[in-house]
Amino acid sequence: MDDQRLVVNECKSLLKDHPILEGVSDAVLDGLVKVARPQEVSKGQVLFLQEDEAEHVFLVINGWVKVFRETLDGEEAVIDVITRGHMIGEGAIFNGGQHNAGAAAVEPSLVMQIPIRALEDLINQNSDIAVNMLHMVSRQRRRQNHEIESLTLQNASQRIGCFLLRLLPVSAANTPEDDITLHLPYDKSLIASRLGMKSETFSRALGRLKSETGIGVRGGTITIPGVVALTRYSCSACSTEFPCKDMQ
Amino acid sequence: MDDQRLVVNECKSLLKDHPILEGVSDAVLDGLVKVARPQEVSKGQVLFLQEDEAEHVFLVINGWVKVFRETLDGEEAVIDVITRGHMIGEGAIFNGGQHNAGAAAVEPSLVMQIPIRALEDLINQNSDIAVNMLHMVSRQRRRQNHEIESLTLQNASQRIGCFLLRLLPVSAANTPEDDITLHLPYDKSLIASRLGMKSETFSRALGRLKSETGIGVRGGTITIPGVVALTRYSCSACSTEFPCKDMQ
Repeated sequence: MDDQRLVVNECKSLLKDHPILEGVSDAVLDGLVKVARPQEVSKGQVLFLQEDEAEHVFLVINGWVKVFRETLDGEEAVIDVITRGHMIGEGAIFNGGQHNAGAAAVEPSLVMQIPIRALEDLINQNSDIAVNMLHMVSRQRRRQNHEIESLTLQNASQRIGCFLLRLLPVSAANTPEDDITLHLPYDKSLIASRLGMKSETFSRALGRLKSETGIGVRGGTITIPGVVALTRYSCSACSTEFPCKDMQ
Repeated sequence: MDDQRLVVNECKSLLKDHPILEGVSDAVLDGLVKVARPQEVSKGQVLFLQEDEAEHVFLVINGWVKVFRETLDGEEAVIDVITRGHMIGEGAIFNGGQHNAGAAAVEPSLVMQIPIRALEDLINQNSDIAVNMLHMVSRQRRRQNHEIESLTLQNASQRIGCFLLRLLPVSAANTPEDDITLHLPYDKSLIASRLGMKSETFSRALGRLKSETGIGVRGGTITIPGVVALTRYSCSACSTEFPCKDMQ
């Protein structure tokens, strides 16, 4: 099977698993895949900017893409960082056709461009898809509620602890005493932005988190001596306990 | 016309204008109003708590209601403060029937209880309502994106300035030199919480905003000598300019 065909198959399988398209027929999926085009993007490459007219939504096949907003002063707020299987840009359908935030690859990535019109037509023709999308947007809203709560009430170290906990499988809650090793999904300066911190604040806060919870940090590798200390430290300043409901 | 009947008429007229119910027939509205019950709530009274099983959604007829989340430590994050014409609790429909945040009146208020099941049935029977709701939730998500951006990049004084600007009519942008007097919609300690600040931080930041932009503050009355200085100060640390797109 050639590369192009491989990508198309992968695209179809990711679309099939995507919450927006839950339960739709194979024929509908094939229709979407047919109009989708793979695009390789290099690190830093912009997919679209805030207020751009939306022509495509993008499905991430591999790599990481950040969603960001830039102030008039040139500062950047990283709203989200997404990876394989996630879609980006579909919000424009309900924003007068304009993107509400920008998107750029943070490492070499492979995405599928899907004409936004194709998705829009599907939503209009198929009320199941509208309801699926409602579920998805509602879940995103809950995650954002959590984000606002966390920015308001957690200190920087607790926010980093929360970020680490959210990288763990939900099942880690069943074996809270077990050691866990994890690798940070992207570099620390981006994690700092994602958490709304300057790099210096991030470094200091990570140091404090180490001494408060006994985690080990070596480059991008984190060792956690059981989640108990980490959850006690971070989740005490949160309205939900690990594993967070909005992760499930 | 007796009081009860007056409330019912008002409820119907607010429902008619509510974005979820845009374009629905009079018969559908009458059906909803028929199962709605008015409820007077006193200051501080809780409508529901986070993780409660949702039985009703609430339409605010008069007064102010805060949406909040409480940490295990007992700290509170105020996610939103809503008033007349706004609905609260409908998110539970897409959250397994549970409320994702709590709600409590911040002053004596009048709300209509509407059985959540009635709204749920409407969404399932009427794809237009699902699409309306999608528009509404998407708008809320954009507001939250703005909120996350603001919590990340604006300083406390800029956040207060932004809060004031968002109280102004969109038309204020057309007469940027004109003096404006406005009254704060609820008390300063709640505004502080809504903006994710301690009361002390709020007072200091308000003082700085006064000296930076020339606004006057007397109790809950704010005088703004034209919006130019305020927008220059607050919007420079934001990705959109006054009037904010997500207000419209």
